[in-house]
Amino acid sequence: MAQKPSIPKGTRDFSPEEMAKRNYIFNMIRDVYHLYGFQQIETPAMENLSTLMGKYGEEGDRLLFKILNSGDCLAGFTDEELREKNALKFAAKACEKGLRYDLTVPFARFVVQHRNDLSFPFKRYQIQPVWRADRPQKGRYREFYQCDGDVVGSDSLLNEVEFIQIMDEVFRRFGIRVCIKMNNRKILTGIAEMIREADKITDITVAMDKLDKIGLDGVNDELRSKGISEEAIAKLQPVIVMKGDNREKMAVLKEMLAGSETGLKGIEETEYILNHIETLPLAATLETDLTLARGLNYYTGTIFEVKALDVEIGSITGGGRYDNLTGVFGMDGMSGVGISFGADRIYDVLNRLDLYPADSLQTTQVMFVNFGEKEAAYLLPVMARVRAAGIRAELYPEAAKMKKQMGYADAKRIPFVALVGENEMAEGKINLKNMQSGEQESVGMDELIEKIK
Amino acid sequence: MAQKPSIPKGTRDFSPEEMAKRNYIFNMIRDVYHLYGFQQIETPAMENLSTLMGKYGEEGDRLLFKILNSGDCLAGFTDEELREKNALKFAAKACEKGLRYDLTVPFARFVVQHRNDLSFPFKRYQIQPVWRADRPQKGRYREFYQCDGDVVGSDSLLNEVEFIQIMDEVFRRFGIRVCIKMNNRKILTGIAEMIREADKITDITVAMDKLDKIGLDGVNDELRSKGISEEAIAKLQPVIVMKGDNREKMAVLKEMLAGSETGLKGIEETEYILNHIETLPLAATLETDLTLARGLNYYTGTIFEVKALDVEIGSITGGGRYDNLTGVFGMDGMSGVGISFGADRIYDVLNRLDLYPADSLQTTQVMFVNFGEKEAAYLLPVMARVRAAGIRAELYPEAAKMKKQMGYADAKRIPFVALVGENEMAEGKINLKNMQSGEQESVGMDELIEKIK
Repeated sequence: MAQKPSIPKGTRDFSPEEMAKRNYIFNMIRDVYHLYGFQQIETPAMENLSTLMGKYGEEGDRLLFKILNSGDCLAGFTDEELREKNALKFAAKACEKGLRYDLTVPFARFVVQHRNDLSFPFKRYQIQPVWRADRPQKGRYREFYQCDGDVVGSDSLLNEVEFIQIMDEVFRRFGIRVCIKMNNRKILTGIAEMIREADKITDITVAMDKLDKIGLDGVNDELRSKGISEEAIAKLQPVIVMKGDNREKMAVLKEMLAGSETGLKGIEETEYILNHIETLPLAATLETDLTLARGLNYYTGTIFEVKALDVEIGSITGGGRYDNLTGVFGMDGMSGVGISFGADRIYDVLNRLDLYPADSLQTTQVMFVNFGEKEAAYLLPVMARVRAAGIRAELYPEAAKMKKQMGYADAKRIPFVALVGENEMAEGKINLKNMQSGEQESVGMDELIEKIK
Repeated sequence: MAQKPSIPKGTRDFSPEEMAKRNYIFNMIRDVYHLYGFQQIETPAMENLSTLMGKYGEEGDRLLFKILNSGDCLAGFTDEELREKNALKFAAKACEKGLRYDLTVPFARFVVQHRNDLSFPFKRYQIQPVWRADRPQKGRYREFYQCDGDVVGSDSLLNEVEFIQIMDEVFRRFGIRVCIKMNNRKILTGIAEMIREADKITDITVAMDKLDKIGLDGVNDELRSKGISEEAIAKLQPVIVMKGDNREKMAVLKEMLAGSETGLKGIEETEYILNHIETLPLAATLETDLTLARGLNYYTGTIFEVKALDVEIGSITGGGRYDNLTGVFGMDGMSGVGISFGADRIYDVLNRLDLYPADSLQTTQVMFVNFGEKEAAYLLPVMARVRAAGIRAELYPEAAKMKKQMGYADAKRIPFVALVGENEMAEGKINLKNMQSGEQESVGMDELIEKIK
């Protein structure tokens, strides 16, 4: 009967302290999205597999958690089908539903399904868990939250400007110093066009990214090893060693990409964004970075990535512009731009830099000690008044030993303990103990409320 | 390629407006739980099936959503096993995980698994979705949220008193007039003991509940039809017709249950709660009701249920005291008491009574019209100041026709629209239109902020 309980590998329980910290993160992101007019939606955890399959490549299909049809899941199978033991074919028939793998595909499905009820441009954010049957490892889970924001139905680059402001504001509020990196798919396409190596753009960005580590010769050697021609490598030199601020980089690129319409369009877009951001009070640094190669199959314009400056960790937010979110569901021309905050990594950064404000824990503010039946009965209406003043208060529910009650307050990090015995009841006073300083004083109700607030 | 997208039956998408309303509900419940020192936890959507199976009866086992093992789910099966086509046996081997069915079993598992890290009494709340493969129907979904609060590790009836306060406070804040109904399992046991029909207690409560509809003779006929003896029915008469306030009811019961230790204990518990509640400012009415028979297999003491007074709908919150939450996981003696708010029904009640406060929609407060490139560029730093003042603001991202932009503001129910053209830019003014009154005036920055706030 009795089992030693556990949870599936790659999943997590969240303790009260972890939840308070996670809520601090989610609420902050939510607040900033609201400040910019974004609205929240939610979609079901389960989607039809027909919605999910084929959207994440073969690997993605394998990593979907599939839900066995309820009822008699084997009824439709012939003996022969079963004897085949083809797990993929079996699952395709025995499972109609799967757990969502990200928030993008469900969002695309949502937009198409509710197109007539939405007003475009549609600015939505969504904070929900996703599930992937990945091999669990440090920092990689099978259930984790994504915090996506997207604007769809608008080509305007003002949306890109706004997302930079949003990322800046979120990390400014967290107190995390960041660099927002920006690239543009069209610039990369332009470069590939100019050197006639269109299919090697990923190899090129990967190699260029190693300049600091392996030097120019190292980068060139790596490019050679990927089969890139000497002529192409020669043409790439000014881009690889490109230095200076965003303007200077654009100047170098303009010269190099003079013959590429697409490349020039990418530069124009980037300059538009830089020009508009210049007039805004940004806390973060904004850096154009050609080695940024996130989602090259997906993004068609600007690409974003945020790096924390004071912690060694991968990107903590990313996103970009895409041309055709909903085409796969039969609705073309729905362009958009979006970002995704990496909640788990932000959690780690805030922990490592110890940046959670004290009041983000939202714990009980005052615990009333329970001295016995009479005192407890006396305290109930007293505490009702304390709570009516907005103070989070609790009464220890048993007349346990003082040490036990104080230990409870300690464990819960409750900053004040109130003691009301016979004397205090007679005088209408409350003995208030500051758990940090150890200081203790006798106060009236108004004073108590003031002290705690 | 293109598919007409849909979602699994019994699941829902939540639109921005629905989400705003749901967040209003969840945040309110959360705030009140915090006010009483409850802390939030979360558990994974997927639990091991060994944790879930056998906890909800045979019917419950059938209604669990089971997740097909990833990788080769058919590898471990012999041809013979497959040919059997026994769906339940098959699932037991091909699925290790399932979606949680409620929050109680995962909570019990959590308490046992983390017993050494928790300080008891442990006051936790949990707001998460659960999944049931029930036949969907109006008001019944396959994915829905539960909002549970429990105190475990304390026998004190002060916890029951506190939960009454919590329910009262939540519905007071919502503006929903309610009756909190209370019963006690021990009183029901006492009654069954006295009339020697211990196994018929459910039949008895069901029949008694029909007094208003079918009259005393009707109730007695129904009792007879359930095989209850004439002697027992005669003894039951004073309970069936019991009238008056809570005190009077207890007086009748005390007399009737004088011979039942358990029954008298139930009365004592109920009177303790009534005595303590009397000193507190309750907005709800509190009514002892012997026909309340929720969770009779599970609850061992007080039973709660909340009914809305102004809307015809089932109970909108329920709960009670249980003796052994964690015994099934090998940890005995963990008594507790808890409640569960029915978010979907509360949502319906708030809708039907139109009780959502206007500001609960958290929409954009002011939209700036986009007259063109120059104006948009001018507005970005202006809007940064507006947002710095905490105002939710957006700029329409394209210089679209005025009608389209105003239509967008209308659809999103944005209360103010700001118009800044050549003249306003020259004068450093903003033309602010109140969308409700139609009133329009030229204001400076400080005035704008003040008007909108």
